[in-house]
Amino acid sequence: MSTLPPGISAPASALLVRRSTGARQATLRESNLALVARIIQAHAVPPSRADVATAASMTRATVSRLVDELVAAGIVEEAARPAQPRRGRPATPLVPGSRLVALGLQVDVGFLAARVVNLRGEIVTEHVTPGDFVASDPAATLRRLGAVGTSLMSALPAGLRIIGAGLALPGIVSVEEGLLRRAPNLGWTDVRPARLLGERFLAGLPLTIGNEADLAAGTVAETAPGRPGPLTDFLYLSGGIGIGGAVVRAGRVAAGRHGWGGEIGHVCVDPAGPTCRCGSTGCLEQYAGRHALLAAAGLTDTTPSGQVRHHAAAGDPAALRAIATASGALAVALASVINVVDIPTVVLGGYLGQVLPWLRPDLEDQLRARVLSARWAPPRIVAADTGPAPGATGAAFVKLAAVINDPARWIELTGPTGHVG
Amino acid sequence: MSTLPPGISAPASALLVRRSTGARQATLRESNLALVARIIQAHAVPPSRADVATAASMTRATVSRLVDELVAAGIVEEAARPAQPRRGRPATPLVPGSRLVALGLQVDVGFLAARVVNLRGEIVTEHVTPGDFVASDPAATLRRLGAVGTSLMSALPAGLRIIGAGLALPGIVSVEEGLLRRAPNLGWTDVRPARLLGERFLAGLPLTIGNEADLAAGTVAETAPGRPGPLTDFLYLSGGIGIGGAVVRAGRVAAGRHGWGGEIGHVCVDPAGPTCRCGSTGCLEQYAGRHALLAAAGLTDTTPSGQVRHHAAAGDPAALRAIATASGALAVALASVINVVDIPTVVLGGYLGQVLPWLRPDLEDQLRARVLSARWAPPRIVAADTGPAPGATGAAFVKLAAVINDPARWIELTGPTGHVG
Repeated sequence: MSTLPPGISAPASALLVRRSTGARQATLRESNLALVARIIQAHAVPPSRADVATAASMTRATVSRLVDELVAAGIVEEAARPAQPRRGRPATPLVPGSRLVALGLQVDVGFLAARVVNLRGEIVTEHVTPGDFVASDPAATLRRLGAVGTSLMSALPAGLRIIGAGLALPGIVSVEEGLLRRAPNLGWTDVRPARLLGERFLAGLPLTIGNEADLAAGTVAETAPGRPGPLTDFLYLSGGIGIGGAVVRAGRVAAGRHGWGGEIGHVCVDPAGPTCRCGSTGCLEQYAGRHALLAAAGLTDTTPSGQVRHHAAAGDPAALRAIATASGALAVALASVINVVDIPTVVLGGYLGQVLPWLRPDLEDQLRARVLSARWAPPRIVAADTGPAPGATGAAFVKLAAVINDPARWIELTGPTGHVG
Repeated sequence: MSTLPPGISAPASALLVRRSTGARQATLRESNLALVARIIQAHAVPPSRADVATAASMTRATVSRLVDELVAAGIVEEAARPAQPRRGRPATPLVPGSRLVALGLQVDVGFLAARVVNLRGEIVTEHVTPGDFVASDPAATLRRLGAVGTSLMSALPAGLRIIGAGLALPGIVSVEEGLLRRAPNLGWTDVRPARLLGERFLAGLPLTIGNEADLAAGTVAETAPGRPGPLTDFLYLSGGIGIGGAVVRAGRVAAGRHGWGGEIGHVCVDPAGPTCRCGSTGCLEQYAGRHALLAAAGLTDTTPSGQVRHHAAAGDPAALRAIATASGALAVALASVINVVDIPTVVLGGYLGQVLPWLRPDLEDQLRARVLSARWAPPRIVAADTGPAPGATGAAFVKLAAVINDPARWIELTGPTGHVG
C-alpha cells in the first residue's frame, strides 16, 4: 500500500473490492481498470504510465494496456509532454478526461443551481439563480430548475459527453427510491423530482438525488474527483439558510441505516429555544443558520452574501454579537455530536466558513470544555473551500465517481471508444 | 445466506472474512471452524451435525470433522440425545461448551463487580459489591476489585478453564493501549488497570479493558455469546449514576476513530443546565443519571435499587415528576443523536430500563416531534434485559467471542485437546 499516492487510501481500495464482489464478481481486468483510474485521479502531479505501474504494483505492459482502454473511453487523457525533459524521451503525463462531464443540480431555500463538472473536478459551466423557495411549490420550482438546466445544456461546448445528472436537496432523501421525503425549509414532503424536472430535459439522462450536505461533503473528501482533499474523517456543515450536515468516515458519508443521518442542523441546542420548521425546538439552525445570523446582526436577507463577514471585519458590535451566539450554539451541537461519533474534525461550508475567523476562538475554547476527549484529540475547525452551491458540485461528483470506481461498466455501456455522439 | 439461522447475519459473516484476511490469510479450515462455531452459538434450538451442514452449506463429513475439533477444544459440547426420537437413531444436539469461561470485571461509580461467564452466556459465579467510588483512588479501588476477583476464582467449580479477563470502565478508554484516559464520575485520569489489579491475581490471564456501555451493549446484540439478541442496529444507554452510551451498527459497537464515541450521557440537553463532572454543562446524565433522578424524586442514594420504580408505581408525585424531567432530557438528547446517526432503536439499560413504563409515553411523543425522520421510522424504545453490572458480562463476552470468531487460533494456542490443566 505504501506505493499508492496519498489520495488512494486503504479504505477506498477495500471499498472498491467490497462493492465489486456484491452483485457480481469483479474480474481482474475490472479491478485493475478501477485501480489505474483512481491512481490517475488522485495524483497531484500527472503521473506517467511508469508512475502508475509503480503505484499499482503492476507491470508497465499491463498498465499501458489498461491506460489505453481508459484513454479510448475518455476517462483518461494524455497531456502534452513537458517541453524540456532532463534526459531521453519524455514520458506522457496522464490526466483525468476533460470530455466526460456530469450535470449537478441543487434546490436550496435561497437559490437554484445547475453546474456541469468534468472528471478533473473543473466547472465547465454553471448557472446559479438566487430566489426565495421557502414554502415553494415543488412542481413549479423543479420546472424552473429544469429550465435553468436546459439553457445550460444548450450552451454547452461541443465535444462533451454528459454521463448523468445529480440533484442535491436540503432534506431527508431516500436515494434508492429517488424520493425526497421531507425538506423542512422548503416545506416539501414526498416529492419525486425526476418527473417534475421535465421529461424532455432529463431525456435519457439517469438522475440521482441526494441530501445537499452529504453531497457537498463529498467535494471536500479525499475521494473528490479530480481534486482529492486531505480529509478522510470529518463532520461537514453546510452554512446556508438551513444547516445541513454530514458525518464522513474513511472518505465516505456515513448517512446511517436509511441514509437520513448527519442532520447536525437539527441537533437541539436549547429545548426552550425557538420553534424550528422541522417541528422541534432550539435546533442548531435556529441560531447559526443564515437567516438567524442576519436577523441577530440586524441585517436583511437582501444584503449581498458575505455581508455578515464584512460587518464583522468592520467591528460592528451587532454582527460580532450574532456570530458569538452562533458560535455558542455550534459549540453545544458539535460537542454533542463529537462525543457520540468521535470525529474531532469539523469542516464549515457556506457562510459559516466565511465567518470562521470570528467564530474560531470562542468555538475552539468551548469545544475544549465540552468534548470529553478534547485533551487527547482537540477538535479542529476548518473552512470548506467549496464556493457557492457545493451540493450541485457534489451531485455531479457522485456521477463522475461512479465512472472512476467502475470504468469497465462505463466502457461496457458506451462501447470501447466512448466517443461523443 | 437464507439457510443461516437468524443470529448469523450477513454483516457478521462479512466481518469475519475481513478480519481474517487482515494480518494473515485465513485458511479454509479456519473460516469453516469459525462458521460452524457461530452457527452452533446462534441456534436457539441445539442443532445436530446435519442441521449445521445445512446451515453452512457444507457436507456432513466436513462438518463432522470440524465439530469433532471444536468438541475436543471445549468450544462445543454434545448434549444428551432426546429420550424419545420420532424415528430412527436420534441426532446428537450440539451446544456451546460449558467449561471455557471468561472473567468479567467492572468498576462503576456505585459498585465493583466480578463475574465468570461460560460460552453459553451463563453466569457461573459472580460477586457484586456496592460502594461509593466517586473521586476514589484508582490503585486502592482496583486492588479491591482484584481481591473480589481472587475470592471468586478460588471458589470456582473444578474443571473450568479461564480463557481471559475483561474489565469494563465508565469512561474514555484506549483499548489497544490498555489505558483508561478519563472517567469523569470516578475522577480517574490516565489509569493502567492491568498493573493495579494485582499481578498475582492476573498472573498469565490476558486482560482487555473497554468502555462499560460499549461492552454492555454487546450483551444485547445478536452477536452475544450463547444468547443472540434480536438487534443489530441500536443505541444503548446504561442507566447508572453516570449514563454511558453506545452506537451499535450491524451488530458491532461503532465507537469511532479513537474508540471514544457513543458518549450519549454527555450530549448537551441545556447549555444553561447544571455543571457536569466532565467539565461541560447540561449533560444528559445531569437530568437522567441515577443520582439526579433520586435527588429530583426526594429519595436518598442509600435506598435500595428499584426505589424510584416502586415510588412511581405507587403514584408518588415527586417520583413521577423526576421521571418526567428525565424523559424530557432523554428525548432532547436521543432526538439529536438519532438525527445524526439515523438509528431509531434505543435500548435502555440499568434503572432506565426499570422505569421505562413511566418514561415511555412522554418520551415517544417527544421523539416523534423532534426526530426529522420519525414519520417514516418512528423511534422505538426497549428495556435491556441485562441484570446488574452488564458491563462485567460484556467484558467476559469480548473474550468468549474471540474464541468463537477464531476457534483455530484458540486450538493453536492451547493444543488440540484444550483440557484444563
